[in-house]
Amino acid sequence: MGADIHRALLADGHLDRLHTVARVDTAAPITTLTDTDTATSPGTAPASAARLAHAEVLFTHWGAPPLTEAALRRMPRLRAVVHAAGSVKHHVTDAVWKRGITVSSAADANAVPVAEFTLAAVLFAGKRVFHVAREYAHTRTPPSLLPYYRGHGNYRRTVGVVGASRVGRRVLGLLRPFDLDVLLHDPYVDPAEARALGAEPVGLDELARRSDTVTIHAPQLPETRHMFDDRRLTLLRDGATLVNTARGSLVDTDALTRHLLTGRLNAVLDVTDPDVPPAGSPLYTLPNVLLTPHIAGSLGNELGRMTDWAVDEVARYARGLPFAHAVGPEELGRSA
Amino acid sequence: MGADIHRALLADGHLDRLHTVARVDTAAPITTLTDTDTATSPGTAPASAARLAHAEVLFTHWGAPPLTEAALRRMPRLRAVVHAAGSVKHHVTDAVWKRGITVSSAADANAVPVAEFTLAAVLFAGKRVFHVAREYAHTRTPPSLLPYYRGHGNYRRTVGVVGASRVGRRVLGLLRPFDLDVLLHDPYVDPAEARALGAEPVGLDELARRSDTVTIHAPQLPETRHMFDDRRLTLLRDGATLVNTARGSLVDTDALTRHLLTGRLNAVLDVTDPDVPPAGSPLYTLPNVLLTPHIAGSLGNELGRMTDWAVDEVARYARGLPFAHAVGPEELGRSA
Ligand SMILES: NC(=O)c1ccc[n+]([C@@H]2O[C@H](COP(=O)([O-])OP(=O)(O)OC[C@H]3O[C@@H](n4cnc5c(N)ncnc54)[C@H](O)[C@@H]3O)[C@@H](O)[C@H]2O)c1
Ligand SMILES: NC(=O)c1ccc[n+]([C@@H]2O[C@H](COP(=O)([O-])OP(=O)(O)OC[C@H]3O[C@@H](n4cnc5c(N)ncnc54)[C@H](O)[C@@H]3O)[C@@H](O)[C@H]2O)c1
Repeated sequence: MGADIHRALLADGHLDRLHTVARVDTAAPITTLTDTDTATSPGTAPASAARLAHAEVLFTHWGAPPLTEAALRRMPRLRAVVHAAGSVKHHVTDAVWKRGITVSSAADANAVPVAEFTLAAVLFAGKRVFHVAREYAHTRTPPSLLPYYRGHGNYRRTVGVVGASRVGRRVLGLLRPFDLDVLLHDPYVDPAEARALGAEPVGLDELARRSDTVTIHAPQLPETRHMFDDRRLTLLRDGATLVNTARGSLVDTDALTRHLLTGRLNAVLDVTDPDVPPAGSPLYTLPNVLLTPHIAGSLGNELGRMTDWAVDEVARYARGLPFAHAVGPEELGRSA
Repeated sequence: MGADIHRALLADGHLDRLHTVARVDTAAPITTLTDTDTATSPGTAPASAARLAHAEVLFTHWGAPPLTEAALRRMPRLRAVVHAAGSVKHHVTDAVWKRGITVSSAADANAVPVAEFTLAAVLFAGKRVFHVAREYAHTRTPPSLLPYYRGHGNYRRTVGVVGASRVGRRVLGLLRPFDLDVLLHDPYVDPAEARALGAEPVGLDELARRSDTVTIHAPQLPETRHMFDDRRLTLLRDGATLVNTARGSLVDTDALTRHLLTGRLNAVLDVTDPDVPPAGSPLYTLPNVLLTPHIAGSLGNELGRMTDWAVDEVARYARGLPFAHAVGPEELGRSA
């Protein structure tokens, strides 16, 4: 993993428990595995042959160097990779699957804060809390209750969930206690399963037309690029809110910005395309937009949850149990 | 009820079902009961003796005139008052209890949106979402992840709930799915009940000292005035968030404003004292404050929930069942 994140993990204390379930190589974190990947961590030397020769389990995090064939040749005893963060796409290569190395990811633990952020966004969007707050800061007089608030409120609103992914499933679970009708679009989920998840299965256009709030939880893949293009954004109801905590590329940001500028739509955007909007973008200041810099995932103490879950995985490995959060090559093609 | 709210209720359609469970007097709403209370609704004449003589159940809402002895004398058949909004303190007088009239309130239905607002506020406060969003709008560059976010996050944070009131109990229920430790202060709830509600019972000073987020749900009463005075606010941890959706008087607003100005505390304030802060108040613009104009309660379609629940109460009355949401004089002394 990267040196920064290693320092942060040590400081937050959750890593201590790793010593109770494994023999831990406590030398400096391995940021570079071979001579050819020094680019990832400029200035660091690859880990010594002796360190790598012993490794049976790699405990990885943000900034892990790629596990190429060359890297794996240096780790003849390697049996498992436990990633204490979300996606393993950056470092787990085909070579890992070919060697039969098992992989666990904390993407499930990382899904928790994203789902929590989404729930809060959906509830506040229903009441137009951000918009009302900004108007209030401007007018400094309370809006007259009845006419102003027509269309506000969280009673029997329709929420459209795009993707019963790890995050999407948690969102569906969290939405259960509320008086909300939930729609789900996911081509990999059959209607019976959607209903068991508490949602009505629908096509994406129908979801766009019927929802008061749409929340996107599909992975970034070639086929999800601009899933919400101008045509589909136009299907959304007047006053609808789009919540995007997935990836910016799933939405045509220029088209969305036009719908936001007219005030027809509202948005909560934790991700955009590009990742940071240009300094002149109206997304920073529009009263109907809450824009955050990719913070829905694990932040601060939430990194501790990923560490805790990953240490649990190492403990399972030590007891000869299968991983609770295994990932395999078959699912990576439709996954984040 | 007031004429405005009556118009709004008719327009939203939820009142239609009342006709299936009762004979409804569909003449203009009664906004004035006697000659002496014309002050409540200037320009309207008191309801005619003939209309009042028939009334067995009053269906009331915001702006209902007080049910004084004189008013009750005009309604000899009156047996029940069903209030389709929150507190009945404004119109239900001692004369009502003396006559043995039963009263139902939709305060439970009104507690739902307040608890939902609170949950969203607690989750966003944990991640400092408002603060991060405002900084981002200002800097237009993403903050560097690790050092910036120390102290952010919703993993194993402590949330202090003040008051297991209608709202407070719902908040306690909604907080269950999260990795949060919950404290409760309520002098009317014994320790076993607090634990059954999922919270650790504590004194108010201990709650202030230990919580990362404090959320106030006690009623406005003489003994709750300035519950959070300067001394108690000083007990709060650096970086803690105070959420107030109860009443402004429960907090010493001047003292709180000082703690907010230094940046030591954060706040989500749906209510303040006075109700609308003076135009020069920093509460409108501080980056660590989300200020809303008393919108946590029923807004827009959420009025429909109160109507639905109140119509259910009339249906129970018609079938000879006791009210599901009865209120009595004994509890009004410690209630909102
Ligand atoms: N904002 C953040 O900080 C943050 C943090 C974590 C994840 N994310 C993003 O959230 C999203 C969900 O992440 P995850 O780990 O839950 O994903 P995941 O890997 O669990 O998603 C895979 C699932 O998505 C569904 N899916 C695939 N293609 C779809 C399509 N075309 N339409 C609808 N559903 C489809 C399928 O059910 C599939 O199994 C991703 O875009 C991810 O990048 C963001
Ligand atoms: N922001 C809004 O739009 C909005 C809407 C509805 C209610 N409210 C406010 O929310 C608060 C809760 O309303 P409710 O209807 O749930 O109240 P409630 O009438 O149910 O509260 C009564 C309960 O509060 C608790 N309590 C009483 N005194 C207390 C004390 N000193 N310390 C701690 N707990 C105490 C007791 O359990 C008591 O039974 C009230 O202040 C109410 O005015 C605000």
